Order: sequence, then C-alpha cells, then structure tokens
Amino acid sequence: MSSDLKSKFLEVYETLKSELIHDPAFEFDDDSRQWVERMLDYNVPGGKLNRGLSVVDSYKLLKGEEELTEDEVFLACALGWCIEWLQAYFLVLDDIMDESHTRRGQPCWFRLPKVGMIAVNDGVVLRNHIPRILKKHFRSKSYYVDLLDLFNEVEFQTASGQMIDLITTLVGEKDLSKYSLSIHRRIVQYKTAYYSFYIPVACALLMFGENLDDHVQVKDVLVEMGTYFQVQDDYLDCFGAPEVIGKIGTDIEDFKCSWLVVKALELANEEQKKLLNENYGRKDPASVAKVKELYHTLNLQGVFEDYENKTHEKLVKSIETHPSNAVQAVLKSFLGKIYKRQK
Amino acid sequence: MSSDLKSKFLEVYETLKSELIHDPAFEFDDDSRQWVERMLDYNVPGGKLNRGLSVVDSYKLLKGEEELTEDEVFLACALGWCIEWLQAYFLVLDDIMDESHTRRGQPCWFRLPKVGMIAVNDGVVLRNHIPRILKKHFRSKSYYVDLLDLFNEVEFQTASGQMIDLITTLVGEKDLSKYSLSIHRRIVQYKTAYYSFYIPVACALLMFGENLDDHVQVKDVLVEMGTYFQVQDDYLDCFGAPEVIGKIGTDIEDFKCSWLVVKALELANEEQKKLLNENYGRKDPASVAKVKELYHTLNLQGVFEDYENKTHEKLVKSIETHPSNAVQAVLKSFLGKIYKRQK
Repeated sequence: MSSDLKSKFLEVYETLKSELIHDPAFEFDDDSRQWVERMLDYNVPGGKLNRGLSVVDSYKLLKGEEELTEDEVFLACALGWCIEWLQAYFLVLDDIMDESHTRRGQPCWFRLPKVGMIAVNDGVVLRNHIPRILKKHFRSKSYYVDLLDLFNEVEFQTASGQMIDLITTLVGEKDLSKYSLSIHRRIVQYKTAYYSFYIPVACALLMFGENLDDHVQVKDVLVEMGTYFQVQDDYLDCFGAPEVIGKIGTDIEDFKCSWLVVKALELANEEQKKLLNENYGRKDPASVAKVKELYHTLNLQGVFEDYENKTHEKLVKSIETHPSNAVQAVLKSFLGKIYKRQK
Repeated sequence: MSSDLKSKFLEVYETLKSELIHDPAFEFDDDSRQWVERMLDYNVPGGKLNRGLSVVDSYKLLKGEEELTEDEVFLACALGWCIEWLQAYFLVLDDIMDESHTRRGQPCWFRLPKVGMIAVNDGVVLRNHIPRILKKHFRSKSYYVDLLDLFNEVEFQTASGQMIDLITTLVGEKDLSKYSLSIHRRIVQYKTAYYSFYIPVACALLMFGENLDDHVQVKDVLVEMGTYFQVQDDYLDCFGAPEVIGKIGTDIEDFKCSWLVVKALELANEEQKKLLNENYGRKDPASVAKVKELYHTLNLQGVFEDYENKTHEKLVKSIETHPSNAVQAVLKSFLGKIYKRQK
C-alpha cells in the first residue's frame, strides 16, 4: 500500500464529505451541517481503511499493465469510501447494542454527552449517505443498478448475520449447547465476510465491466477467506500478544460465540463440558483462567494451526483454477495480507 | 376504502412475509425465522395502513376507467407495503430514541424483555426488507432503478428531518428561541411529508410509467399537504378531543417543536415569551395549564382555522392548474381525506 494512494484516498473523503453536507435533497442549516461533519469525521475515516483501499488495489490488479485515469482513481476511491461508510454505520449501531465503551481508541460516538441516543439516527444517516454518493457519481454508469443491488444485498446479509449473533447470544446465555460450528460459520459468514471481503472485490469487478453472476467462484473464495479471517480474530483474542493486537481480548468474559469455544465444545468430554458451562461468560479471572487452561489441554493452538494450513491450501488450490490471471492476482493479494497474521 | 381492498392488501402482506423469511440470500434457521416473523407481525401491519393503501387508490385513479389486472393489484399492494415497512423501521428506532413506552396501543417493540437493544438491529432488518421486496417483484421493470432512487431519496430526507428535530430539541431545551416557523417547516417537511404524502403517489406514478422529473408540481403540492397534515396533528395534540384522537397529547410537557408553540412565540409579547420560557416543557399540570391559557389568549384556535382555510384554498387552486384530470383526482382524494379532520 503506497502512502501516495492513502493520501489520495483521504483527499476523496474530503470531497465526498463536502458534497454530502451540501446535498440539495435536504435544506441544511449551520447546526445540522456542523453536526453531520463532526459525526462523519468522528466515525468514518479513523480505522485502518483496509476495506476501502482494497477496492482501488483490486481495480488496479484487474486493469493489469494499463494505468488508471484520474477519473477511475476517484471512482474506485468513492466506492471504497462507500464500504467504509457501511462499516461506520454498523459500528455506530453495534456499539449501542453491545453497550461498548471505546472504539478505535476513543469513546464510542453514542457515549459523547451531547450525542446519546441521537447516535441511532446518525447510524441511519451514515447508511443513507451511501446511495447519495452512488447516485451523484455513478447514476449514468451502466452498472449503477448492479451497484445498488450489491450494496443492498450485502447490507441485508450483514444485518441478518448480526441478528443471529444477537439472538444466539441471548439464548446461549442459558444454554451453551446452542453454540456450534454451524452457527459460528453462519454468524461469521453473514456478519463479516460479505462486507469485509466480498464487497470490495465485487465493486472493483463492476467498475471493470464484469457481470457478478459470472463470478460465483470469486464470491465463494472471498467468503471462505472472510470466515478464515474471523477465525483468526477469535484465535488472536485469546492467544495473540496484547501488545501486538493492541487490545486485551475479552471474548471468554463476554460469552462470545467464538471459534475457540465452539471447537472446545466439539472436542470436550462430559466433564470438560461441565467446566465450560460453569466458567464461560464469567468476569472473574479464576473462571477465565480455567477456560484458557482447558483450551490448552484440548490443544486448540494446534487445532487452529491445522485449520489455518488446510484452509490456506484449499484456498490456493481454488484460486489457481480461476481462468483469469488478473482475478487470481486479486484473490492472492487478499490471501497474502491475512495468511498467518499476528494482528 | 373498500374492506375488500383492505383484505386483499393484508393477503399480500402474508405473501411478502413468507418470501422474506425464506429469502435465499440468507440461511435462516427456525430461531431466526421465528424471530423475524414475530418482529414483522408486531411492527408492520398494526397501523391504519393509510400510506400503503393510498398507493393502490392512487394507481386506480391514474388508470381511470380501466380495470386493474390481478398482477397490477399485487404490485401496487407490494409498493404500499414497502412504505409501511419504511414507517415501521422509523417508528421502531424513533421509539428507542424518544424512550417511548407505547405505540399503537401496545408496548414499544424494544420494551419487550427479550428484545431490548436488539430492536436497533430489527429496525435495520425492516429497512433491508424494502430492497428485497423491490428486487423480487420489480427487478425486470423499466422503472426499477427509479424505485430504488425514490426510496433512497425519501429515506435520506426523513432521516435528515429526524436529525434536525433531534438536535433542535437538544439545543431548544436551553433556548426556546431556536424554535421558529422556519425550523418547524423544515422538520415537518423532511421528517413526515415526503414519506407520508409524496412517496405513495410517486410509487403509483412510476408504476403508471411516468417520469418523476415531470411531476415536480405534484411533489410540491403533496409536500405542502403533508406539512398541513402535521400542523393539524400539532393542533389536535392540544385542542383535539382525547376520546376522538385516541390519546392525550403531551407536546407541551415534551418540549416539542410544535406549530402551536412556534406560532405562540411569533405572536407573544415579551411578558408572554417569558411565561413560555418558564413553563414550556415542564411536566407539572400547573405549567401546562399556563401554556394552554396563553394559547387561548393568543387565539391560536382562530389562527389555526385561518391557516387551514388559506392552505386549503391554495392547494385547491394549485391542483386545478394541473393538466391531467387523473392526477387532479389523486391529489383531491388526498386533500379530501385530511381537510378539517378531527382525528
């Protein structure tokens, strides 16, 4: 990732923001314009921007030798920002639902004294900015309607994944046996994989003139990669180095439907299951230590390593059957960024 | 409104619901399917359904003598339901933000013990159902992209109106002078008029093959009508008969930016303004009584009557300049339903 591209990307953010706070579809006054500007600056650009930047990267790989025009760079950045807006929308609302305190090293937006429950509507506003951006810059493109369909479908899948996560945790608190590999895979696939892995490449493909119906294999590979990415996340939450991942994991305390607990339930004998039921989801350090000890006893680190190697091999094989070298390059670039990551 | 149409309309709801809980874009299990079904039944069909039914009414008026086919009835009903889904989405989230207790004579969805903050995501799911319905039934229509644009624009305007309402009430609590006729008009126009009055007719026009760019006058008339409708609402909150409107108004207690307080501020002398500042937005009955007394002193009932007559006259004149008799009939039908309404 060139720092050149990143500064270009951030420049496009300023353009999009300025267009949104002067959108003629609404009569802004100083208060509302200022509110939206603060809300955007607080919630949209502060992350790693991997999802957004990968639209530009992927589009470049699809073009191969051919240099991008100024216009193409702008449009790929704009699509990248739509994904960052989508992410901001989910995060603002998720933090309210999870009663989180911090996000990206600062208080969650709804925790600011002047914001509170207005954050619910701000989430809705963030979501509404996506079709405004798409309409302004893509209305005349042949793939405009496909872009709208794509963002709509991925948002639907993400919301559905979030829903099963919420209701599973709800019933799970009484009944750990609801946690299974199958429900874990569905939560992760729908809640994370589509919007984190599939949609950036799908945007690049549409801009490149492709029909997404011809790319079911690309979708399947990216969804599998997104699932693998989340399994890594679950693993690092417990086994990662806090100074490297930048936070202290609390999945055990929070009763999360993590890949680790699901694997543990699968491998545990009756006695070990009893230990999990009695200690998982409790805040006290002694309970957490017992769960971690069981994870070690069941050799979950080895089980994870095995999963990681097998998944990598499977993904590489699948990618190499793809007829287009450019598409292979896109998929390998994604895989290379996450394989054996430590953070 | 024939009870025949209403039962047909409710039949279409069952079809749409069944399609949504079997949507192949997501892997439902029994728990999630049951959750969505309960959530829909609780939040979508329980209102008066005026907005949804008016799509069918309007489309019939546009067709004139010509009988609607079964297919046309279904499609007009489906668009009507999209508007009801939009309304349900806003109401579920508004109730959370306003900390409301009841809605349509039952506890607000988020007040149910098993729901709580999951209601935020349920609101998002409701919103996502709209493009799912549109894609399933309208993807092949020439006006599909216009429907998507229409729903996107109206949702954006509604969320923007809600935003200025929220931030005005926030600063208004310290400074009643922020309340003005101009801000009231903007809140009402954006928060209510587009989605309650404009979008049903716009849907009918699109189905009828019209280009919405050719119907700016229709939009202006409907937005003015929607504004008038909300002014009536504000008026009835204070001066309506509780046994007729079905609730006891609390706009004064709640510090609402109501047309009445805005008019009162406009007409009040310094002493009367002081009274408003000291008593508006307070729960105690003595304060509320003082505000109501001032409304009487300022003859707000007469001022409202005057506004109602002038608005009606202006709307009729504007409608009668429209070149199409069918469009005139649509607009007059809307106006007839709300003119001098008591509830």
